[in-house]
Amino acid sequence: MCSTGTRIIGSGYVDGVTEAEIIAALTRPSARARVGIGDDGAVLDDGTVITVDTMVEGRHWDDKLTPADVGWKLVAVNASDLGAMGARPSWALLSLALPDPVDRAWLDAFRAGLYEALDHFRIELIGGDTVSAPIRVLTLTAGGHADHPVLRSTARPGDDIWVTGQLGLAAEGFLSSHPSPAARAALARPPPPVALGLALAQARLPTAMMDLSDGLRLDLARLCVASAVSADIDADAIPGVPDLAWRVAFGEDYQLLFTAPPAGRSAIGALSHAHGVVSTRIGTITPTAPGGDHTARLLGVDWPDSLFEHFHRG
Amino acid sequence: MCSTGTRIIGSGYVDGVTEAEIIAALTRPSARARVGIGDDGAVLDDGTVITVDTMVEGRHWDDKLTPADVGWKLVAVNASDLGAMGARPSWALLSLALPDPVDRAWLDAFRAGLYEALDHFRIELIGGDTVSAPIRVLTLTAGGHADHPVLRSTARPGDDIWVTGQLGLAAEGFLSSHPSPAARAALARPPPPVALGLALAQARLPTAMMDLSDGLRLDLARLCVASAVSADIDADAIPGVPDLAWRVAFGEDYQLLFTAPPAGRSAIGALSHAHGVVSTRIGTITPTAPGGDHTARLLGVDWPDSLFEHFHRG
Repeated sequence: MCSTGTRIIGSGYVDGVTEAEIIAALTRPSARARVGIGDDGAVLDDGTVITVDTMVEGRHWDDKLTPADVGWKLVAVNASDLGAMGARPSWALLSLALPDPVDRAWLDAFRAGLYEALDHFRIELIGGDTVSAPIRVLTLTAGGHADHPVLRSTARPGDDIWVTGQLGLAAEGFLSSHPSPAARAALARPPPPVALGLALAQARLPTAMMDLSDGLRLDLARLCVASAVSADIDADAIPGVPDLAWRVAFGEDYQLLFTAPPAGRSAIGALSHAHGVVSTRIGTITPTAPGGDHTARLLGVDWPDSLFEHFHRG
Repeated sequence: MCSTGTRIIGSGYVDGVTEAEIIAALTRPSARARVGIGDDGAVLDDGTVITVDTMVEGRHWDDKLTPADVGWKLVAVNASDLGAMGARPSWALLSLALPDPVDRAWLDAFRAGLYEALDHFRIELIGGDTVSAPIRVLTLTAGGHADHPVLRSTARPGDDIWVTGQLGLAAEGFLSSHPSPAARAALARPPPPVALGLALAQARLPTAMMDLSDGLRLDLARLCVASAVSADIDADAIPGVPDLAWRVAFGEDYQLLFTAPPAGRSAIGALSHAHGVVSTRIGTITPTAPGGDHTARLLGVDWPDSLFEHFHRG
């Protein structure tokens, strides 16, 4: 299906509008959770953070990914969500829907990548479910603890806007006919900076944080709406591949997007360096004009169009 | 697909052998969880119990179920797992894989049944994920707390064996050409006795407990293997529909199977009565003969064959 132009959607999100509709259709205000649907994870009163991501064969991966890559990625996208909440990943439950009969070679290779990632992110697989289905549908639920959960809804005007890593590598890995090894690796084995997210949160440096799964353009817009603020972004400051559209309008980056007051700049730089991660300031949170929309503006240029088909295109 | 003879599999389990193989291929001993894969749910050190169940369209439901029934059942099967661990259900995360474009009427009806069950079992939906897929695949992860988690691996020789409710109603609902209203309801809207499971556990009455999702024959065999014991069952004592095969070899009962010392009989009867549930003694846990298999025997008759195709039949 990817070959027809349907984009792989790493975080499992469909598109902004449709997913918002589905979520609105399904949700009610929650009393039990401090933070519910709409952030990277849900936060319980005791600081437990829980997230779930589903990957569908042909939709979230194609033959560019080996079964081992799929195992890695299923864990990595959940770990990314937890790290972006400032949570330390701890446990996971796996639900596997697999065609009958089970392809044992696929399962063994998937398992190898799964456990590589579980070990890397120090996550214990504690339960699961297996069912038969016409296509492979893989769901991982992961949980952990955050002393200081960081939400996407708490950015403030005047905050710097930061991203980690190099954006657009997965786009290059998926869209380029001759991707670099780094781009191929970013697509197949994304290494979200989970430990840095946790360290930033424990140092109380970010005012808001989320992971970049659907591209800076969509994800920053979500952060602005959730925080009721706007944003000015310097396109040239966005680190990553040369093509702006690949950097901001594809997704699958699994890097951190966070905001912090200017007073935190040197501490953020030092902490990032200590974790072997480059954090880059790309803009500023601004107040939304009275009566205006909460908007992220790219200074000097328009946002490129999304590089994937939307869920409702058909 | 159900019309071809493929059984709907309520708990999401495939069959005993294949699922055991898949789980063995995927799991390692877990350090972080007190109880991991193999019980109805995983138990964390703090008493949090977590379970996950996936339902696949055409496999776990067909047009005998309305979309609202599917919503109810997705919650009920998870609540059943938690109750059978002695846990109080608390929160859930929903992952929806839905065909594109989304069928809004289906979604609204599904939502209605989902929330009926969430309200009934006092579960708060706190998060989730939505993806597009060629078929509907629904995964619910649910969690709760157990002061005294009850496992399936702790039955002891001499214990009574109990079941709740009437077994085989869902079998009648699925297999009969003229099912009774009660049978139709049991198939479409199973009401697991979650509160009784919790009350029994809090009273420390059961030595072992699990829910009946795949039929007494399979589930009791699992309890025996997990507890390293055997069992003698009086077929005539098994409460439910007249057909023995329907009572023990179909599944979808979502009733409790538990063991308890004879000293607990009157307390179990009283507690069950207080919860409006009939609990029935059907046999006794026995020691496994040295070198023998852990076996559940049906006294006087053979176990009927399973009434569903196994995952590996093809």
